[in-house]
Amino acid sequence: MNLDNNYLQLHLDFYKNQLLSDTIPFWFPKSVDEEYGGYLFMRDADGALIDDDKAVWIQGRAIWLLATLYNTVAQKEEWLEGAKRGVDFLLEHCFDKDGQMFFHVARDGKPIRKRRYFFSETFAVIALAAYAKATGDEGIANKARSIFGKCIAYATGEIKLPSKFEDTRPSRGIGVPMIMMNTAQQLRETIGDPRCDLWIEKWMNQIETFFVKDDIRCVMEQVSLDGSIIDHIDGRTLNPGHAIEGAWFILHEAKYRNNDKHLLELGCKMLDYMWERGWDEQYGGILYFRDVYNNPVQEYWQDLKFWWPQNEAIIATLLAYTMTGDKKYKRWHEQIHKYAYSHFHDKENGEWFGYLHRDGKIAQTAKGNLFKGPFHLPRQEWYCMQLLNDIII
Amino acid sequence: MNLDNNYLQLHLDFYKNQLLSDTIPFWFPKSVDEEYGGYLFMRDADGALIDDDKAVWIQGRAIWLLATLYNTVAQKEEWLEGAKRGVDFLLEHCFDKDGQMFFHVARDGKPIRKRRYFFSETFAVIALAAYAKATGDEGIANKARSIFGKCIAYATGEIKLPSKFEDTRPSRGIGVPMIMMNTAQQLRETIGDPRCDLWIEKWMNQIETFFVKDDIRCVMEQVSLDGSIIDHIDGRTLNPGHAIEGAWFILHEAKYRNNDKHLLELGCKMLDYMWERGWDEQYGGILYFRDVYNNPVQEYWQDLKFWWPQNEAIIATLLAYTMTGDKKYKRWHEQIHKYAYSHFHDKENGEWFGYLHRDGKIAQTAKGNLFKGPFHLPRQEWYCMQLLNDIII
Repeated sequence: MNLDNNYLQLHLDFYKNQLLSDTIPFWFPKSVDEEYGGYLFMRDADGALIDDDKAVWIQGRAIWLLATLYNTVAQKEEWLEGAKRGVDFLLEHCFDKDGQMFFHVARDGKPIRKRRYFFSETFAVIALAAYAKATGDEGIANKARSIFGKCIAYATGEIKLPSKFEDTRPSRGIGVPMIMMNTAQQLRETIGDPRCDLWIEKWMNQIETFFVKDDIRCVMEQVSLDGSIIDHIDGRTLNPGHAIEGAWFILHEAKYRNNDKHLLELGCKMLDYMWERGWDEQYGGILYFRDVYNNPVQEYWQDLKFWWPQNEAIIATLLAYTMTGDKKYKRWHEQIHKYAYSHFHDKENGEWFGYLHRDGKIAQTAKGNLFKGPFHLPRQEWYCMQLLNDIII
Repeated sequence: MNLDNNYLQLHLDFYKNQLLSDTIPFWFPKSVDEEYGGYLFMRDADGALIDDDKAVWIQGRAIWLLATLYNTVAQKEEWLEGAKRGVDFLLEHCFDKDGQMFFHVARDGKPIRKRRYFFSETFAVIALAAYAKATGDEGIANKARSIFGKCIAYATGEIKLPSKFEDTRPSRGIGVPMIMMNTAQQLRETIGDPRCDLWIEKWMNQIETFFVKDDIRCVMEQVSLDGSIIDHIDGRTLNPGHAIEGAWFILHEAKYRNNDKHLLELGCKMLDYMWERGWDEQYGGILYFRDVYNNPVQEYWQDLKFWWPQNEAIIATLLAYTMTGDKKYKRWHEQIHKYAYSHFHDKENGEWFGYLHRDGKIAQTAKGNLFKGPFHLPRQEWYCMQLLNDIII
């Protein structure tokens, strides 16, 4: 395949440098809570703490990050020790008596809020799996596998969680098969689990069968149980950044399976469809929500630029380019990379702002809150660095 | 008192004309659902239906509006008949078997979503009370009183609704005493209820005691049970438009009590504090959220301009001006009135857009959705028209 090696080398150096000299130092070591364990991530642009509460998703994601850096980049004691502080807090404070995990806890671990879905659990799986790989701790590995089993039971409906909605208009979201397939991919690539391959196949199949609409070139976020479009405001709402994240999970699987042709095509068309719908031709960047028929979207932040859809699009376009050699993907990667690093990156304090207005002006300055912490950005920089490292060497 | 009668007459004419020749005709009669009853309010800028679902809050609010126009403006059959179509739908489809109301139903009334609070109920009370006044129907009047009793039981905790939060950090919100005091005011002024005066007193007392902070010139949205500030992101988040709505509920009560001096001062200072925090000096208009200590706000739409805070500020400033003669309030009224009607009003199709970017550009075009319908704008135009009518005559 004819790839632009210069371009790839340039970006390898850039992502590595950003990750290790800019993004990670913004968060660590200062965010490790030496008093209670876990991490203090709710910070303003300059790193000042604006809240000492802990978002359970982000505690898990940060353990994953530190353990993954230890497993794949360098065996730094600081990273392993940091991951351990998170694991201890997660296991001690983030599970309710009924086994379900909390969503939001106080600094000392007292519970603030539990939610009606199980994404705290999926991030706990990838956290504990990466940490078990780093330490060889079989107890932690089994804990990861056991929570993964519980996630499968939630995902299939074998264990029922309370529902936000009545039974009138049953639907399925792309979030569950997407997050579950990525959780299984992580589990497989760290400590392994015999269930992973089969379930990844099933979830990819769900995504392709129910959510990918070739006739209208679209990846839906939510559909009826049979995959038909629910023609109401919520049912019509697309999340291009999320679908593009799904696209690279599929491309990653294609790569794992020796460039499986069908999966490569599936991932590429998901990216194509949602780039067309998500890329803002006027100002650049990926928009948050779109309506499938271009009606007004109800969610108020629909045309803000959030940090994470840009991260997912950087990964997806680079992966698509390196797997296909198609110059369109190189062009898209260049566009989104330039847009994102020139608008989101905080040159003064490091890391990225999270929320821009549509026109690229900063809407608010927090680097961390209940929903933002060290995950999408460092994962993107790490993933792209690893990808390019493998190709160039 | 020395009021600018020219100014008042000009605005009386303006609000009356807007209400009757612009706002109401946008919604009626086309929104009355002749097939299933209730109203079809989810409409784009030009009136095109974008969703045929029904938001229960807004069904109730529209009944209130139509019955109130019939009671106070003109005894048009169309308004009474329209209110009846809503009342029938509300009573037949919007209550669950356990007596709690739904939040969101399908066009045919099948339930989509129930929520863990009781604002569908408070709007049902004002709807049924206004309709009972219009028709003299004692059965409906008793239904309104009975739901009001249930709201009191929810508000006091005598009937417990499921909670979103664990017990670690108990809090109280200004929403419940505010909405309950206004519900009681409406009930008192339509069909009457012996419980109203006492409860209005109690709820005003709660607002003053727990939420109004003279030392920092602020009205909090949420506080600890003892009224102290919860120094976490959510606890610090202010909603200036909401507090300004509370201010005019208090001013309205002051007026009802023969310009009660203490209440007049309380309402004025609530308006003063939150105008200072909410008015956007740079672009004009009332911002959605602010942090009490000027930290970043987490809610993504924090600096958008929504329609309804402007409506509430127009009422509050006009009421404060007419009750005090203070030229500051006339100036503020002029500012917000000019900003709002020049930025939100849709000169082509009538009614207002709902959502502007901070800089005043339209963020999305829907006139109605799950949260917007014919309420804040027509209530403002109606309230100001009635207020000025009483003063000028």
